[in-house]
Amino acid sequence: MHELKIGLLGCGNVGGALAELLIARRAAIAARTGVDLSVGAIAVRSTAKHRDFVVEADLLTTDTLGVVQDPDIDLIVEVIGGIEPARQLILRALELGKPVITGNKELLANHGAELYAAAEAAGVDLLFEAAVAGGIPLIRPLRESLIGEDVTRVMGIINGTTNYILTQMTEHGAAYADALADAQGLGYAESDPTADVEGFDAGAKAAIIASIVYGAAVVAGDVYHEGISNITVTDIEMAKRLDHVIKAVAVIEGGENAEGESEIAVRVHPAMIPGDHPLASVNDSFNAVFIEGASVGDLMFYGRGAGGEPPASAVLGDVIDAAINKVAGTAATIGNLQRAKIRSIDSLSSAYYINLQVSDQPGVLAQVASVFGDHGVSIRSMEQRGLDDEAEIIFITHVSNEASVQTTLNALRGLDVVNAVCSVIRVVGDED
Amino acid sequence: MHELKIGLLGCGNVGGALAELLIARRAAIAARTGVDLSVGAIAVRSTAKHRDFVVEADLLTTDTLGVVQDPDIDLIVEVIGGIEPARQLILRALELGKPVITGNKELLANHGAELYAAAEAAGVDLLFEAAVAGGIPLIRPLRESLIGEDVTRVMGIINGTTNYILTQMTEHGAAYADALADAQGLGYAESDPTADVEGFDAGAKAAIIASIVYGAAVVAGDVYHEGISNITVTDIEMAKRLDHVIKAVAVIEGGENAEGESEIAVRVHPAMIPGDHPLASVNDSFNAVFIEGASVGDLMFYGRGAGGEPPASAVLGDVIDAAINKVAGTAATIGNLQRAKIRSIDSLSSAYYINLQVSDQPGVLAQVASVFGDHGVSIRSMEQRGLDDEAEIIFITHVSNEASVQTTLNALRGLDVVNAVCSVIRVVGDED
Repeated sequence: MHELKIGLLGCGNVGGALAELLIARRAAIAARTGVDLSVGAIAVRSTAKHRDFVVEADLLTTDTLGVVQDPDIDLIVEVIGGIEPARQLILRALELGKPVITGNKELLANHGAELYAAAEAAGVDLLFEAAVAGGIPLIRPLRESLIGEDVTRVMGIINGTTNYILTQMTEHGAAYADALADAQGLGYAESDPTADVEGFDAGAKAAIIASIVYGAAVVAGDVYHEGISNITVTDIEMAKRLDHVIKAVAVIEGGENAEGESEIAVRVHPAMIPGDHPLASVNDSFNAVFIEGASVGDLMFYGRGAGGEPPASAVLGDVIDAAINKVAGTAATIGNLQRAKIRSIDSLSSAYYINLQVSDQPGVLAQVASVFGDHGVSIRSMEQRGLDDEAEIIFITHVSNEASVQTTLNALRGLDVVNAVCSVIRVVGDED
Repeated sequence: MHELKIGLLGCGNVGGALAELLIARRAAIAARTGVDLSVGAIAVRSTAKHRDFVVEADLLTTDTLGVVQDPDIDLIVEVIGGIEPARQLILRALELGKPVITGNKELLANHGAELYAAAEAAGVDLLFEAAVAGGIPLIRPLRESLIGEDVTRVMGIINGTTNYILTQMTEHGAAYADALADAQGLGYAESDPTADVEGFDAGAKAAIIASIVYGAAVVAGDVYHEGISNITVTDIEMAKRLDHVIKAVAVIEGGENAEGESEIAVRVHPAMIPGDHPLASVNDSFNAVFIEGASVGDLMFYGRGAGGEPPASAVLGDVIDAAINKVAGTAATIGNLQRAKIRSIDSLSSAYYINLQVSDQPGVLAQVASVFGDHGVSIRSMEQRGLDDEAEIIFITHVSNEASVQTTLNALRGLDVVNAVCSVIRVVGDED
């Protein structure tokens, strides 16, 4: 039996759940793997703070670097979050040859390449299953099972808060503000919900997924994002009438530019998804990642993205993997990632749902339709509904160039007969 | 750059797709992993047979053992299928220190423990992602990501043929025989469909999953199975009225018996699943595996179970993993599995849908209901419908002991007022 001691940096929801899991599963893990894993030290901000879970008081310390450098500690779990001091601590641990497990998406989405390179140089594991999609085994299948696959696109519902809000709006007709307040009441959304609802959280995760899938460094700042705060009850109802649902998705695509160079497109935005698409029935705070591969076809991974226990389960899987590797004297590294070439949002293609309010008078439709044609945006379906003295026209376009669609929208806004461009939502998952 | 040569045993759908994939992805894999992978020899039954894919003629041989023993061959891929000679060839390859990748579910479901032990003894990889659920990365997440998780239940739609047939019956009201003929016409079902429709194929896969999840040897013969050939259009319609769908599922549960010993329950049968359960929208020939864990919560893995390319993608992922491990001088083994203690079907618990045809006369319902009560089977819901001079009574029970339900059914068959026990289908996924 090999004994390994874990140094836990941070002991919030995930750290606490992990500490309890390690105690509860210790014997079972030892029986399955031949490794006896236990927590050797826990670095916290205050040793006096009340905790809901049981930790031995003499394991607690405020000296994070001391835990990293403690010769009795074999393996580091970083669940402090944020860039510093997490980055420095991880680099130091790797330098000391200690495997690191982290769930720190902000750090990886901004300094991933530096950390992966440090792990590679040290020949030590740096594992981070919990950083994306919580408890769902996703990073390991992407790193290992699909490394030979030609992945053409990844679409993910990877922010539980926005998925909860949109599910409430879809199932109960709730307005955005009410659904957000509800999510805040349940603790699914922060009092300042910006990171979730404006797509920053999903953007960081999308950058990590893109880096792993395409083996090139993508950072949070590369990700185009639009939030869900403009989505209205009308949009939700219209989506239903069209047999679609509105979801906040991350879309990651690989391809080549006109010069034959590899390019990665990464964006986060609300999207209409066909009702029979597997992502359409991913509801509440669940996450799911849908992968399209040239050989493997369509895959989906579904599960709990947040809470204390699901990410702790993901960290535990990584801890065991790193422990087995350490005993075997090996490590799984990602290598040195070169900066990715990012496709600009203007060069992307998507189908669009566009909702216009126009004057209800003869010739309007022809006038509006001709604007689409003038800019090379082809219309897949159109529907007009009278509303008192106004009319509403709903267009679904064929897959079109983003810049052309934006030019079309600007031209439409300039028409006297167009009173408002109410909604513009990309349609994904049923490309023609 | 490390060069590794693959010896391919068998070159049918999966082997051919793999040979093509290895050529198409060779440069990309080398760039990502530093390993240059190519096919060094292909053992086939006849070198003269026409093949739809391009293989270099001088790689072909009929000498399977020669390929295994060829010193130029570093890694063996076995896609012959069947027990022998596949078993002997794999054992010989492991003995020679050559990693083996196989998609042979029949072999693993009957001799898995022997092969895992041989791989452990040799310190060599034996990988088999393609054996279960085709292209879906499932075995690796189960072996690695979830090894520390307390998995309480696994439910899988792991036979594409029966899922296709039941989807046709559900979506188009097709009768079983017509849907089967349709599946045969499309090549989804064999001319003798027994292995699929009676649950033998799913049973073999369930045995493999159970062994990996619970770290104990479960063989195909341990799996209780019922086929789908008795499912009628009426059952399908009744399921719809109850907001359920009928799916052929494998159910694998871990637990303890009255003596506190670990027990595994494994069964394959048609089941009614609530319409909002993630498995309910897994249609056509898609596969999905739904995992319930104490910490991680609910997970689902979804994708293509069959065809040439999805399993070839799974084999390729394993080949790359084994190649990287071989270069690093390591291997991921499953170890020596002890025989599992299998819970007998009589001791299982499930909710049941039961459809009775009874005489339409006063007092029948009370008489029938009392039979349930006498045997300790509690009724969750009941519905009676008149049909000319007969009546149909539909019961959904609470979760009940299997043996008690069978005794109840026998007692019901003995009642004069019961003309027929038309359908008995387990209800899973909404346990109370």
